[in-house]
Amino acid sequence: MPELRKNILNGKWVVVAIERGKRPRQLVYRSYKEENDMVCPFCDGNEKMTPPEVLAYRDIEAPNSGNWKVRVVPNKFPAFTTEENAKHKKQSRLFLSRPALGVHEVIVHSPDHKASLAKLSHNQIELVIKAMQERTGELCIDEAIEHVSLITNHRTESGASLPHPHSQLFAGSIVPDIINNELANFKDYRLKNNSCLVCDVIGEEIQVQERIVFDGEGFLVLSPYAARLPFELWILPKEHNSRFETIGDYERACLASALKLTLGTLSQKLNDPPYNLIVHTAPCKLEDNRKYHWHIELVPRLTFIAGFELASDMTINIVSPETAAKFLTGAE
Amino acid sequence: MPELRKNILNGKWVVVAIERGKRPRQLVYRSYKEENDMVCPFCDGNEKMTPPEVLAYRDIEAPNSGNWKVRVVPNKFPAFTTEENAKHKKQSRLFLSRPALGVHEVIVHSPDHKASLAKLSHNQIELVIKAMQERTGELCIDEAIEHVSLITNHRTESGASLPHPHSQLFAGSIVPDIINNELANFKDYRLKNNSCLVCDVIGEEIQVQERIVFDGEGFLVLSPYAARLPFELWILPKEHNSRFETIGDYERACLASALKLTLGTLSQKLNDPPYNLIVHTAPCKLEDNRKYHWHIELVPRLTFIAGFELASDMTINIVSPETAAKFLTGAE
Repeated sequence: MPELRKNILNGKWVVVAIERGKRPRQLVYRSYKEENDMVCPFCDGNEKMTPPEVLAYRDIEAPNSGNWKVRVVPNKFPAFTTEENAKHKKQSRLFLSRPALGVHEVIVHSPDHKASLAKLSHNQIELVIKAMQERTGELCIDEAIEHVSLITNHRTESGASLPHPHSQLFAGSIVPDIINNELANFKDYRLKNNSCLVCDVIGEEIQVQERIVFDGEGFLVLSPYAARLPFELWILPKEHNSRFETIGDYERACLASALKLTLGTLSQKLNDPPYNLIVHTAPCKLEDNRKYHWHIELVPRLTFIAGFELASDMTINIVSPETAAKFLTGAE
Repeated sequence: MPELRKNILNGKWVVVAIERGKRPRQLVYRSYKEENDMVCPFCDGNEKMTPPEVLAYRDIEAPNSGNWKVRVVPNKFPAFTTEENAKHKKQSRLFLSRPALGVHEVIVHSPDHKASLAKLSHNQIELVIKAMQERTGELCIDEAIEHVSLITNHRTESGASLPHPHSQLFAGSIVPDIINNELANFKDYRLKNNSCLVCDVIGEEIQVQERIVFDGEGFLVLSPYAARLPFELWILPKEHNSRFETIGDYERACLASALKLTLGTLSQKLNDPPYNLIVHTAPCKLEDNRKYHWHIELVPRLTFIAGFELASDMTINIVSPETAAKFLTGAE
């Protein structure tokens, strides 16, 4: 059963979630190799290899059959659990733990085993976004769920464990520290400036014109001023909204365009690099729409997170965001 | 010039340190390959390829010549700077930066291009530790230096950029968040229990006997209760001391033994995996020896830090520390 354990020295929580069937000796180090030769549980026809779906888009309804366009299933090796007996808290002076309560799902982008997000059609990307929105909205209603994170890991080096393109949804009973920090900074900024932090970043970046990669309908794509790793990009909705899951048809279409263009540019200019894509949306129970501005953070993984990062909780970025933007827009 | 920039959303600082001569197109993604065929600046005879040394152990003194045992040089691509003109602060409402003030050095473990720490002789490991202590002690005296981190990155996947075994020393003008969090937790624990947090962890772990890998003279090696990644280990000095740099000959010898045994075990049981080794020592200006307990954190890199980790600032560990300890001690 997945468990949260507290690092008593630095105060950080860790999810200890043992992958079923994975023995320590299977983790023995081997040089990296993409494994494409196993039977893929996310391919059309292999629906029985996954837990029963929680959502799918098909022309004709027939749950857990083939011929779907997008399919959402519970993660077979979840980092969170809904088990009732998980509600027991273990506490001791030095060893603090609690159950990792929540839901962990997989959003399979399409039946195509090889088509990364960048290669999908505009319409298919819209369907992927729609599935993400639908699941987030539904899970957020649950009183035990405080926050939903949506993540795409592209390629092994970014943490992807299966090659068939998919995203993951983590709906947990706690709000992650990063989101809490963001909320505090939004609040602090609003108190001082009486405006939204991200709305103001958008305005200022458009004025400065040093870090913009794509200024499109509905969305601004830029390499943020404090990019943590080379070529980190933020995809910022121009329309203020705290919640990704509530955007409508028009914005969804704009987002599909922005994603296709951004991921296509990364792929073309940087030889299809590994990346993590992260949707930041407001905590489920946050009612005031002014207090957050949803957005996407996209982190290519061209350099490794090393000892300095683990020691300091700071990253070293060897490409300035200004140079990254120039390179990606072809100006360098 | 290396610069600290603040992520305005989550409040984290990032070091933007552009590697001299590295153009964005050199970062284009390639599948990982160890590059052993370049001329190595850390090998005996190539002393001219590095900046002049700041410390070396030789039988006969002859700075920057060959025939050294351990050699410490400034990092050619530093993440910190001591440049006087760096003292200018740039500040604006949304884009906060300051110079990354400090010193970044490389400790070359031995002239042997292939011998990782685990393979060095006991005496040679003692010399590496001694060099780390000497440089930390000397830099800590500088009034501008607030904290020193010592790090070993083993193999490319851990962030090592040169294959010749070496460690890095980061002496900065700020105390990293992780150390500040630790100090706060030590303080909180002492207020409640009137004892040292790490001294008590040592006592409790010896009693519980579930996560211990090696209980030796001077040091306890264990997989911590909230290990962030599979097989993370802590090397804890049994003698309370806030500072690594002040340990004496006896403890240094014990540490060399503990390191050789621990790294040898990792190498043997997990096929010489990539790892980060991090020495945690007290901030330079912390005077009260009771307020911290120095130690080493050793993090094998068998799984990748993925989107969830970047989204939440939590890690998912798929091997429990109890299982890890059993596996490493041969009990499983």
